[in-house]
Amino acid sequence: MDSLRELMATEETLDPPDWVDVQALSHRIIDDAIGYLKDVRERPVWREMPAEVRAFFSAPLPREPAPIADVYGDVARNVMAYPMGNIHPRFWSWYMGSSNFTGALGDFLAAIQGSNLGGGNHAAGLMDSQVVDWCKEMVGFPASASGTLVSGGSMANIIGLTVARNAKAGVDVRERGVGAIPKPLRFYASDQVHSCHRKAMEALGLGNRAVRRIATDAGLRIDADALKAAIAEDHAAGFKPACVIGTAGTVNTGAIDDLQALAALAAEEDLWFHVDGCIGALIAIAPENRSLVAGIEQAHSIALDPHKWLHAPFEAGCALVRDASAHRSAFAVTPEYLESTPRGLASGQWLHDYGLQTSRGFRALKIWMALKEHGIEKFGRLIDQNIAQARHLTGLIEAEPTLELMAPTTINIVCFRHRLEGASEDRLKAFNTEIMLRLQEQGIAALSDTTVHGRHCLRVAITNHRTRRDDLDLLVRQALRIGKEIEAAAPPG
Amino acid sequence: MDSLRELMATEETLDPPDWVDVQALSHRIIDDAIGYLKDVRERPVWREMPAEVRAFFSAPLPREPAPIADVYGDVARNVMAYPMGNIHPRFWSWYMGSSNFTGALGDFLAAIQGSNLGGGNHAAGLMDSQVVDWCKEMVGFPASASGTLVSGGSMANIIGLTVARNAKAGVDVRERGVGAIPKPLRFYASDQVHSCHRKAMEALGLGNRAVRRIATDAGLRIDADALKAAIAEDHAAGFKPACVIGTAGTVNTGAIDDLQALAALAAEEDLWFHVDGCIGALIAIAPENRSLVAGIEQAHSIALDPHKWLHAPFEAGCALVRDASAHRSAFAVTPEYLESTPRGLASGQWLHDYGLQTSRGFRALKIWMALKEHGIEKFGRLIDQNIAQARHLTGLIEAEPTLELMAPTTINIVCFRHRLEGASEDRLKAFNTEIMLRLQEQGIAALSDTTVHGRHCLRVAITNHRTRRDDLDLLVRQALRIGKEIEAAAPPG
Ligand SMILES: Cc1ncc(COP(=O)(O)O)c(C=O)c1O
Ligand SMILES: Cc1ncc(COP(=O)(O)O)c(C=O)c1O
Repeated sequence: MDSLRELMATEETLDPPDWVDVQALSHRIIDDAIGYLKDVRERPVWREMPAEVRAFFSAPLPREPAPIADVYGDVARNVMAYPMGNIHPRFWSWYMGSSNFTGALGDFLAAIQGSNLGGGNHAAGLMDSQVVDWCKEMVGFPASASGTLVSGGSMANIIGLTVARNAKAGVDVRERGVGAIPKPLRFYASDQVHSCHRKAMEALGLGNRAVRRIATDAGLRIDADALKAAIAEDHAAGFKPACVIGTAGTVNTGAIDDLQALAALAAEEDLWFHVDGCIGALIAIAPENRSLVAGIEQAHSIALDPHKWLHAPFEAGCALVRDASAHRSAFAVTPEYLESTPRGLASGQWLHDYGLQTSRGFRALKIWMALKEHGIEKFGRLIDQNIAQARHLTGLIEAEPTLELMAPTTINIVCFRHRLEGASEDRLKAFNTEIMLRLQEQGIAALSDTTVHGRHCLRVAITNHRTRRDDLDLLVRQALRIGKEIEAAAPPG
Repeated sequence: MDSLRELMATEETLDPPDWVDVQALSHRIIDDAIGYLKDVRERPVWREMPAEVRAFFSAPLPREPAPIADVYGDVARNVMAYPMGNIHPRFWSWYMGSSNFTGALGDFLAAIQGSNLGGGNHAAGLMDSQVVDWCKEMVGFPASASGTLVSGGSMANIIGLTVARNAKAGVDVRERGVGAIPKPLRFYASDQVHSCHRKAMEALGLGNRAVRRIATDAGLRIDADALKAAIAEDHAAGFKPACVIGTAGTVNTGAIDDLQALAALAAEEDLWFHVDGCIGALIAIAPENRSLVAGIEQAHSIALDPHKWLHAPFEAGCALVRDASAHRSAFAVTPEYLESTPRGLASGQWLHDYGLQTSRGFRALKIWMALKEHGIEKFGRLIDQNIAQARHLTGLIEAEPTLELMAPTTINIVCFRHRLEGASEDRLKAFNTEIMLRLQEQGIAALSDTTVHGRHCLRVAITNHRTRRDDLDLLVRQALRIGKEIEAAAPPG
């Protein structure tokens, strides 16, 4: 007994010996976090890390312990001070949400509560299913559909495309593999389709070649005639047309494919109809703009992304599949150590039967808390607000002769460039890139750039609940100022 | 100007109008969370949800806002009160870590800071790479290797197996798909391999049939002779043996394949050598047991899982690949809107070039903070501690004639059952399942069950920094008590 007591005395844990210090520090962390968000508008949107901060991140694996207050001090100094910037009101790069404080509390509570959402009979599992049900409700999917919360839009698309592949293979592709598919499958998407679909097709063993990029019209929507022609061509060549991917909000310009037409075509041609709604699916909750995504409710599967327009902290994506049994039968396995029991902890659903993860985090909580706090109507208004802001910016650009709108603005993405009399495309690209970099480096605004129909442009993607119209007014003024500065320093010719 | 001001005044945000209330509530949440962890040992490990709690989770999408304090009240009452139980000292079900308070602060701060780890030049990106470097260091991989933090072990295995598939395909499988591979690939693993490999092979289009399950020896390790025979057979039959998956810690019993022998065989047979180290890779940091995983450093790829033995809150897995260029070339795409710039925000690494996600959360922070606070040596000791505890439990079982050890204990997993004189296997299964369920329902301990070499057994997986030896003493006492109760109520015959 004595030796046992001795052994027990040496048993360690990650819990602190004294919670009082941790409590005080945690209160300070809360206060700092609130200050951080409250003052975000006063700070630069982005700034370069000094060399000593970069060096800090090359330290080797720590062997010895350090007081948690020091650890937090390091984080405050080196991490909090140099964020990507997407929480800032003038961040409009790439495409992402701007997080929210309630969501951060949700992530904290999920980590404290600790549950693994692989499955089981516990509250987190029920809430996970509830949030999936809410996502169905948002896009008009029937309650009988199924879905799963995943790491983001890319994974949500992989889930949808896997179910499509398996449903259309004509063989037991899970058992026998893609090599056993009698006629090679073809998938169709517009040439504006997000790169994650390429990665998905490659991962799924179908190959990039199996997805045909269909030309787009002037509005950057898939060209229905070109699509029909491609399908006919593939039939004739011995392929099996399997799936059409409609995009509700392309990443380049925010274009929305004609989802009703695609649904009709899919029905006619017996194709799976998948909608990549990572950007636009949630427009279905926005009262002023919801008609833009009419038809989305007819899809066989939808990818949507709460970490974009619901501003959930990373990560939170959602895949929805109309035919719940097709969904489950693409992923379910029940190994011996995961057998359900009639009662107890293991009597719940196996949530991992709907995707590629086994352990799953409690992503639902952060989404749930923000939805309960604000209500879905406010999220709908915020989406309308961002779209109105993009239209406002479009108006400013159209009114300004030095600027040129480069693509029609459909939703919350605006593509434009600064003109430069007589300059080549290359020179225009270099000039506009320099404007973009100076806007970032001066901490004013973060834009990104892209190429639309072969021409380089700057791109403002407003998925941001902190942006105000005057931020966009400022963007235009500052872009013009920087343009003048560059021209003055290096006059054309 | 007036109408603009009016418009601006109506612009909404998710930020609270008044941070003072939020601050007070957040302090309360911190205090509750600390109390929650401090007293976890006094609460039942698990309990059934009452009907009204279940009903709570079937409410439809909320339309209207609710005060955040009420939202938290709902979460405290309905979510915090009914966790899975894996934060409890006597939770030993399935296989998962028990989270930690510092990690929860890390998740909170990551959500506040907001960065998207898809890439870019910012602090979170550098820390993400640093944590990957630390993982390499832990398992003895060279600094030139690459890696990526992912959602968990299942995804980490998918990453490794994708690189293996592409490296061994002999064609451009990304472009042309699995159908173009001249000789069908074969993968090998023991019959104890985790179900996520089946899901991976299915997802990758290789098919479940492409992974051959090799018989195991009495210690549940892969049988080297059977493996060699299978490879020879496949060569003769026109398949291409491509990859051997070694398991460092099987989910059923914790068996560790002979990694050195597998590395040698892989070299000889020109196979990719992938190690599923989700359970056991980190034994490499445990001073007393590290020799058990000798050879892991010779793998071509490794999956490991910080949300298991580093107790990171979900989710955190890590894939490591020795050949960094094979890794990148399995996943990288650079679409037009993600071109790097020479300076600014977009001048960093594209971290999404190493896996299937585009947006990525800041998982690194919670891992980093806990490693800095405790130091790696303590995590090593905690792993040794869990293994010593499993050996202690094994000793108790062996000393107790009513109990029967059902598999050799290698690391932290103990398989046993309660004997029942003259009972059939079916009756034994029902009897032991009832013991397991009553242990859960009485809030004493959460075990799971499995089948080893055809026989049902109870399974205690101790990945828990809160477990003490006396918790295991109590488990044995209570299992015997419940066994007696069941026998008394329904005497055999
Ligand atoms: C249209 C579209 N689809 C898919 C994705 C991928 O989403 P995630 O970054 O969440 O993986 C994006 C990301 O911006 C997107 O814009
Ligand atoms: C051996 C093994 N591999 C892979 C996994 C999957 O890991 P995760 O649940 O993190 O996806 C597990 C989970 O327990 C495991 O035990």
